[in-house]
Amino acid sequence: MKKFLQTLECDTKIINEYLENYCGSLPKNTVGEAVRYSLMSGGKRLRPSIVLETAKVLGKIDDNVMRLAAAIEMIHTYSLIHDDLPCMDDDDFRRGQPSCHKKFGEDNAVLAGDALLNCAAELLLEGKYSLNYINAVRFVFSCSGIFGMIGGQAIDVSKTKNLDYETLDFLTENKTSKLIMACVGAVCLYFDVSAFKFDCFISFAEKFGKAFQIADDMLDEETDENLNYVSLLGIDDAADILKQLSDEAKKLIETYDSDGFFKSLCDFNLLRKI
Amino acid sequence: MKKFLQTLECDTKIINEYLENYCGSLPKNTVGEAVRYSLMSGGKRLRPSIVLETAKVLGKIDDNVMRLAAAIEMIHTYSLIHDDLPCMDDDDFRRGQPSCHKKFGEDNAVLAGDALLNCAAELLLEGKYSLNYINAVRFVFSCSGIFGMIGGQAIDVSKTKNLDYETLDFLTENKTSKLIMACVGAVCLYFDVSAFKFDCFISFAEKFGKAFQIADDMLDEETDENLNYVSLLGIDDAADILKQLSDEAKKLIETYDSDGFFKSLCDFNLLRKI
Repeated sequence: MKKFLQTLECDTKIINEYLENYCGSLPKNTVGEAVRYSLMSGGKRLRPSIVLETAKVLGKIDDNVMRLAAAIEMIHTYSLIHDDLPCMDDDDFRRGQPSCHKKFGEDNAVLAGDALLNCAAELLLEGKYSLNYINAVRFVFSCSGIFGMIGGQAIDVSKTKNLDYETLDFLTENKTSKLIMACVGAVCLYFDVSAFKFDCFISFAEKFGKAFQIADDMLDEETDENLNYVSLLGIDDAADILKQLSDEAKKLIETYDSDGFFKSLCDFNLLRKI
Repeated sequence: MKKFLQTLECDTKIINEYLENYCGSLPKNTVGEAVRYSLMSGGKRLRPSIVLETAKVLGKIDDNVMRLAAAIEMIHTYSLIHDDLPCMDDDDFRRGQPSCHKKFGEDNAVLAGDALLNCAAELLLEGKYSLNYINAVRFVFSCSGIFGMIGGQAIDVSKTKNLDYETLDFLTENKTSKLIMACVGAVCLYFDVSAFKFDCFISFAEKFGKAFQIADDMLDEETDENLNYVSLLGIDDAADILKQLSDEAKKLIETYDSDGFFKSLCDFNLLRKI
């Protein structure tokens, strides 16, 4: 776990430097400031770290890999800005700081979210292009769109009162897992790995994404009013499923997990406090 | 003008069929419905028609051109959905129908806008790819982003009380002209035309975009509370500048305007009632 935390710290540093540098090119207006504020507000950088570690296993980190990592973090950040809006989850705080709309107003928060999704597209399209790279970029947007992350949010805002286990799984797969699937899947496509390898990574990300959501629900147990795994199953059954999913995820990836990063990622999720 | 209106009608039909077909693939949930409602609510389809007519002049309409046309209309539509939100312009109606958030709620309207921008990226990335096509796609997103359309909106929401002519021009160039520049510029890049030709088309679009905004301001004279060309210059001076810009735009494009579409487009803008 110590090695894993060092790796994560190192990746976070690389990503923060990259994003900080990117933010330097943003216009000096309120929306530019809101984008920078949200992007640099101390996220865990788990998604872009997964991109970098997948690249280390399957090839190497190059400029295009950095673009994929940064763009996925931009997409994640825009989804949080819009999620926090009064008409959505109405959250005044994010990572202990005022949420984007509390700090810059709702209008600027809507635009900052829009800008970040557009920035992701711009950043990705400026990459050195090849068929494999374009396949990777396409995969990112298919994971973040109406059949992916946005599709999950669409169910989330519908606030179905009688959310059953199947619907919650569908919601989680789309809202949470799909963007993690983007992290590994885009790198698999970029390095044009075999279908079998691609399937191992994608299935790992799907299981890990659900495990990550259950761990989140367990941490939010007392504050979250929405239906989630804990409220639906009870804390003990939720913990059992979390453990089981983590084991399955580790099993799926072990052949390719030469540095043990993905195993430790699952263990880290079991232990995490935030 | 009759020939122009027939061309526009024909292009609109082609675009509507394409978008209708696209909407058939959307998920059957509220966000999918909100996307379809907004995309098919009877817009003039001016931007995608400009894409098609530019393609006719510079090459021919193929599948990639259709993708560019449809994606730009999706980007335009998402910007209208978010613009209409209570925290932005707070408009209850759009094209005589309830605006997206009045019909589906603010949360679904935010997600429908996000989904449309993501759909534009997905649709474009599924095109048959070549360096020229990727250059075209990249140009679209640079026009719609924080240094383009969103940048213009950022000034718009700042509601500067002392908006001067220069700032209003900057706002208009970004908020309105850039997406029209995307329509012609993307096609120029796709067909890899000379720098001179590219410059003619882009300069035309810039002038026409401003003329289009002034005509809009003149039509909105009695209802718009924001500062605009009419409130800043008075109706007579605004009309003079509109005429002058239209003449300049026509002059810039006349060498390439074999069918007279772009000349008629400027004349149409001078005469339009909506």
